[in-house]
Amino acid sequence: MAQTDTATPVLDLGASSIDLTRQICDIESVSGNETTLADAIVASLEGFAHLEIIRDGDTVVARTNLGRAERVVIAGHIDTVPLNNNLPTHFEIIDGRDYLWGRGTVDMKAGVAVQLKLAAELADPSVDLTWMWYDHEEVSAALNGLGRLAANRPDLFVGDFAILGEPSNSQIEGGCNGNLRIEVRTFGLRAHSARGWVGDNAVHKLAPILNTLAGYQAREVEVDGLVYREGLNAVGISGGVAGNIIPDEAMVHINYRFAPNRSGDEAIAHMHELFGEYDITVVDLAEGARPGLDAPLAQQFLEAVGGVAKPKYGWTDVARFSALGMPAVNFGPGDPLKAHADDERVLLTQITECEEALRVWLMRRG
Amino acid sequence: MAQTDTATPVLDLGASSIDLTRQICDIESVSGNETTLADAIVASLEGFAHLEIIRDGDTVVARTNLGRAERVVIAGHIDTVPLNNNLPTHFEIIDGRDYLWGRGTVDMKAGVAVQLKLAAELADPSVDLTWMWYDHEEVSAALNGLGRLAANRPDLFVGDFAILGEPSNSQIEGGCNGNLRIEVRTFGLRAHSARGWVGDNAVHKLAPILNTLAGYQAREVEVDGLVYREGLNAVGISGGVAGNIIPDEAMVHINYRFAPNRSGDEAIAHMHELFGEYDITVVDLAEGARPGLDAPLAQQFLEAVGGVAKPKYGWTDVARFSALGMPAVNFGPGDPLKAHADDERVLLTQITECEEALRVWLMRRG
Repeated sequence: MAQTDTATPVLDLGASSIDLTRQICDIESVSGNETTLADAIVASLEGFAHLEIIRDGDTVVARTNLGRAERVVIAGHIDTVPLNNNLPTHFEIIDGRDYLWGRGTVDMKAGVAVQLKLAAELADPSVDLTWMWYDHEEVSAALNGLGRLAANRPDLFVGDFAILGEPSNSQIEGGCNGNLRIEVRTFGLRAHSARGWVGDNAVHKLAPILNTLAGYQAREVEVDGLVYREGLNAVGISGGVAGNIIPDEAMVHINYRFAPNRSGDEAIAHMHELFGEYDITVVDLAEGARPGLDAPLAQQFLEAVGGVAKPKYGWTDVARFSALGMPAVNFGPGDPLKAHADDERVLLTQITECEEALRVWLMRRG
Repeated sequence: MAQTDTATPVLDLGASSIDLTRQICDIESVSGNETTLADAIVASLEGFAHLEIIRDGDTVVARTNLGRAERVVIAGHIDTVPLNNNLPTHFEIIDGRDYLWGRGTVDMKAGVAVQLKLAAELADPSVDLTWMWYDHEEVSAALNGLGRLAANRPDLFVGDFAILGEPSNSQIEGGCNGNLRIEVRTFGLRAHSARGWVGDNAVHKLAPILNTLAGYQAREVEVDGLVYREGLNAVGISGGVAGNIIPDEAMVHINYRFAPNRSGDEAIAHMHELFGEYDITVVDLAEGARPGLDAPLAQQFLEAVGGVAKPKYGWTDVARFSALGMPAVNFGPGDPLKAHADDERVLLTQITECEEALRVWLMRRG
């Protein structure tokens, strides 16, 4: 039978998690273009009687309803940042180690592959499971599929522990830093630069702000046993009207990554301590998430995975679960430093390690 | 006879210089649209036997060939900056003083009106005269009509003294500051702002540059008896990739107005003294012009006009004459602080003062 161009690709959940990663990566799903992959996920899971499938836009939920005492949510996003000539995937060997190269291999289709494979396989896990694969993580928070699902179907966000498959070198990374962006503005008086003394240069007034940024000693803060490293950086600067005009306005765009023992309001207050004499506009704020590693299921999971939990510096959707009172950690294959990189690539052993650790923990009894 | 829309407007050179200013201003001639006004100027002068008329594009030259011992060049541009609902002109009284309001009244059609009236009237001046009215002064130097004429017809740029009718409150303003623009760049290493310490923030590295600018004490320099005030200003600043990226490049756009005893090369060298550790790109350089007030004709002109000569801060086309070895001053009606202003307006008494001073000087004998 001829297959049409619009046919849903078939995912083979019986293949190895490495092969499955490759299948999923080769279905391009840059944010906004997730429908084909979401269709493929639904099609691949429909035959499994132990799973209830729910779809919301291009977000797919599959859950067991086994009446277990505890429920674990395991989630991953299915979109990627835009391509840069890095699809289709290929295998490569670097310094004697095997990698899968290509967009999405790290962030985070290897994690999605492991989750899909285990969702199909684990018909009798020790806890009830809610698997979530969601769209639009790599773009504006307003579009985030997990956020939309939480608004549309809050009943699905019930659980005792959550695991987000974001790349963490298949080690547990707890919580995440908060993320604040502000614009700090200076004002002056416009004038012709031939008679600059008639005006008041707003760009020159940025000097103390840059001095503060350049000299800032970012904190390292222990929260629930993990040490979070903060960061305060200019991520943009602008000002100027024309080559012969004294600028009457200038702006520094500042990004503050703050440890999760500080609330968003406290982070804003800290910016006012530093830049209080200037005009400050908050343009983005995402609360951090405490690591939550003291939760019993988290402890059990830590033991099963082994190794030492680390802090997650970047903001991830674990903060959404944390805000709902559900302890949550990041756990997925791939080096986060390779996320979004043009040479994005995942170490194959991390994919199988992640798969095996989750399987052992989710199947163990007593 | 019916007049068509495309008929050349008629300038009445027998009218007062105030009325003539109004006639000329009401022929809109924003840079690039000078043809109608240039046509009108040629038409108005063609009947005068003492004038030889030369046209180059929308630049018009009219000169006497009387065999006088000395020749004076008197020039003015006929274009204006764009309108902002400030045409047609009207008369207005502010604080009991009479003004003509509207685009071009200051910069510099009142000066052009005085020149046109005297060009027609002075058939027997004490020196030979070369009048020049040129296009495209208010835009890129590459388009400047005076520059084009100097290239096409260098033979016309012969003279012992030059007067540019730029607004100077009908006082003599000598020479002009030089004008240098540079871009100073810093470089770093791009990184995700969640792990800013992996990168190197180029925007933070701008701090010492802004400190230098904010603390800079601009010189006041006496040149040929006039005190020039310099200026060093950021006229623009930029940097940044995205809200979550440590910027790897940033730039400050700097404008240095330097006294005319400093050459362009020396001005660039001074920038290297200040910012030598950074990447510097010269984006624009115009030499200054010494006031040239020690020239005999300049001294004579000073005496005739009376008052005290002042330095010109802004760059004007006097520098072109200066570069050709011809002493040149600015002398025209209008307050330069009102040039390009939305409420551009010229004091009527300045128009007649300018006219009378030029007439007296150009007609005196011995």
